[in-house]
Amino acid sequence: MNLQTLSNDTIVALATPQGIGAIGVIRLSGPAAISICESVFATKNLKKKTLNDKDSHTIHFGVIHDEDIILDEVLVSLFKAPHSYTSENTVEISCHGSGFIQQQVIQLFLKKGARMANQGEFTLRAFLNGKLDLSQAEAVADLISSNSATSHQVAMQQMRGGFSNQIKTLRQNLIDFASLIELELDFAEEDVEFADRSDLKNLVSTIQRIVQRLIDSFEVGNVIKNGIPVAIVGKPNAGKSTLLNVLLEEDRAIVSDIPGTTRDVIEDELNIDGVLFRIIDTAGIRETNDIIESIGVEKTYEQIKLSSIAIYLFDVHEITPNELTQIVKDIQPHLHNSQLILVANKIDKEDMAYTYREFEGFKDMLFVSAKENQGIDLLKKHLVHLFDNRTVNVTETIVTNARHVEALRHTNVALIKVLDGLNMNVTGDFLAMDIRTALHHLGEITGEISSDDLLANIFSRFCIGK
Amino acid sequence: MNLQTLSNDTIVALATPQGIGAIGVIRLSGPAAISICESVFATKNLKKKTLNDKDSHTIHFGVIHDEDIILDEVLVSLFKAPHSYTSENTVEISCHGSGFIQQQVIQLFLKKGARMANQGEFTLRAFLNGKLDLSQAEAVADLISSNSATSHQVAMQQMRGGFSNQIKTLRQNLIDFASLIELELDFAEEDVEFADRSDLKNLVSTIQRIVQRLIDSFEVGNVIKNGIPVAIVGKPNAGKSTLLNVLLEEDRAIVSDIPGTTRDVIEDELNIDGVLFRIIDTAGIRETNDIIESIGVEKTYEQIKLSSIAIYLFDVHEITPNELTQIVKDIQPHLHNSQLILVANKIDKEDMAYTYREFEGFKDMLFVSAKENQGIDLLKKHLVHLFDNRTVNVTETIVTNARHVEALRHTNVALIKVLDGLNMNVTGDFLAMDIRTALHHLGEITGEISSDDLLANIFSRFCIGK
Repeated sequence: MNLQTLSNDTIVALATPQGIGAIGVIRLSGPAAISICESVFATKNLKKKTLNDKDSHTIHFGVIHDEDIILDEVLVSLFKAPHSYTSENTVEISCHGSGFIQQQVIQLFLKKGARMANQGEFTLRAFLNGKLDLSQAEAVADLISSNSATSHQVAMQQMRGGFSNQIKTLRQNLIDFASLIELELDFAEEDVEFADRSDLKNLVSTIQRIVQRLIDSFEVGNVIKNGIPVAIVGKPNAGKSTLLNVLLEEDRAIVSDIPGTTRDVIEDELNIDGVLFRIIDTAGIRETNDIIESIGVEKTYEQIKLSSIAIYLFDVHEITPNELTQIVKDIQPHLHNSQLILVANKIDKEDMAYTYREFEGFKDMLFVSAKENQGIDLLKKHLVHLFDNRTVNVTETIVTNARHVEALRHTNVALIKVLDGLNMNVTGDFLAMDIRTALHHLGEITGEISSDDLLANIFSRFCIGK
Repeated sequence: MNLQTLSNDTIVALATPQGIGAIGVIRLSGPAAISICESVFATKNLKKKTLNDKDSHTIHFGVIHDEDIILDEVLVSLFKAPHSYTSENTVEISCHGSGFIQQQVIQLFLKKGARMANQGEFTLRAFLNGKLDLSQAEAVADLISSNSATSHQVAMQQMRGGFSNQIKTLRQNLIDFASLIELELDFAEEDVEFADRSDLKNLVSTIQRIVQRLIDSFEVGNVIKNGIPVAIVGKPNAGKSTLLNVLLEEDRAIVSDIPGTTRDVIEDELNIDGVLFRIIDTAGIRETNDIIESIGVEKTYEQIKLSSIAIYLFDVHEITPNELTQIVKDIQPHLHNSQLILVANKIDKEDMAYTYREFEGFKDMLFVSAKENQGIDLLKKHLVHLFDNRTVNVTETIVTNARHVEALRHTNVALIKVLDGLNMNVTGDFLAMDIRTALHHLGEITGEISSDDLLANIFSRFCIGK
């Protein structure tokens, strides 16, 4: 398979989700897109309708017909190269939202010479035609799967080229210096230095700091994309599953109001004010009491280790402040990067006046009744607040893609080698080698450097039709 | 609720199915559709983009933004009144196929003054604006849910107005005569006959015959729309569930090749060469042997009664021709309208030469091995063949809608009364009353006569966004 060369056939696919809806859109792209559509497009009375002579970005009403059988009344949107998503001639057919009709129309296009598009092939063509670079193409997939305001904003910024431009600028600066160094190598016998060593050092260390910052941003980026991992821990009967339900219940009520929201739930996710949280080991929380009993202290610590935020939930009537102090002490060594919230549950059960005073001394402690849905709003606000404190500014570039951070790490290693080399006054050819390595890895991000495997890997994340 | 008057607000809904896809389309329709979209539409650099000054049927690239937050890069399709589906100003926004983004964009439009569309409200507006009559609107819903070539063709023909025109012509002919009769009533004292009685009789009996034919077509129409009911009956271990699986298996293999085909399976459906069959009581067939044993002869006869085609399946090595003759005799009285196919199974088990000769005398008998998938293609061809023999020509008008057939039956009763009246020489006022009744019921079909309840009932079948 050769993915790095544009094939010159015409591809077709359903661009809208499968299922019953008002309309469905079928997308054709390639040199023959317009002529294939023309060959089956007509007026209501089956008089041939032309498209090739029409302006780009216009819409035409007619029918799609297979000989004398009318498959559907449709609207055809015309996009002429290079003014389309793929940069090729593209036609989008908006037909009635019946799977049967869509299938008939696609089959007809296949019969007329189009072929079924592979996953992400429209976007691959956009990339190969220079409409998007690789990191922008990846952002399209992220955008489609974004399910919170922050992940959406980060993907949007990346798709619009913010991140790409930053990488390209860094790369260009490095290339300029690299070419001076390479020039030195050509004149090796003459022992001249075209590249000023102290300028080079300044430049490389500036770039290295930026690369380091981008690498660091991945911790936040990953959390934005996949949700902030939250552990809910506590003794059996503290009310963990009730708390989980009350947190998710409200979320679901909000989400289900609005059409267009479907989620493949792997772990339970919680979207609060546009920030995505991911509850660790929901299964564990939901298990029957018998099994919960068997989950020991070790398991609890493991969950805390995996989390960014750990909620320690307890029955406020079953624990003394001294015991709680000891528990916090026990948990502390396992917290690493995560933050602890103490949540006192079951405040609905007894008069709390005395209890509140008892626990005054604990910071980051909240009082709730999971059962009666009291104090839950405050808990949610607190979760968002903890996220705000952790995050760098979202308007800065944030790396959310594991592939990018991997390339940045390789770049970073090479840049540090260059800096070491400069400090040790190594010769130009050594410097040149490390700079080339850095350039290579930076180029991987935007796709200036790419391979079939890389492209196959990236575009297999897309749905067919994108 | 008043559904018969057009509301002058602007409605919005997702027009494509929910779920993840390459794109999703949001539809805005109403007087403020263009201005609402304009208020949040801009270039990539957030410079305002106008739409109102652009031509109808043109497409515009830009971003949808909520203040300084960019929600998505989109294509906006512009349809200016009356050149749109609804006859109103309409804007379709093609955005990325993320439920999150679609929800954000719809929320933004709601904030800017649109309201969420009700089920079928776009089509209701098209009806109220005279773009479609009621029977055409109903055909749109049928078209979307069509899942076989025949149901698709019938719905398409109805949407394109074939059926409506026929009804309207009948009605107009009746109206012409009715007005002559009404004229007589105005001149009652003068005892004149403007309406020639023998012409009237000819006309009414012609119309009545057409109405009767349309009523009769419903039997086929219903079968086209819902599938031809097929019963698979036979003794335990005859191989019924194997046969069912092999029939469905092939069908699924064909269907699943093509994206866009999803089905809510209530009963198992089988699409052969564009004809839809519906297997009765799949659950019964799939039940374990223990339960099958308990399904007696009564149950078998009940299934045959519900079917249009009954397959009697038997193990060809376990039954003699005489026994089979007796079984056919027993089944016969229960067949009513259905046709019987005898299917001899397990031809793979032994040498069949002798057996074939033994059963020579039976017509409509097929030999198969469900297990080895032998003879199954012939069985399928035979099923389609039986359907072809039953059906009237699909190019003739076929009534598929229970509401229409109900109205036609009422019309028929009134027309027969008119004919009886003419035979008995009743006075014009009695004839006029019955003709008015006939006109009323014909008018219900196309929506010249409608009520809120009727409209609510019809449009509740639609999805939101259509």
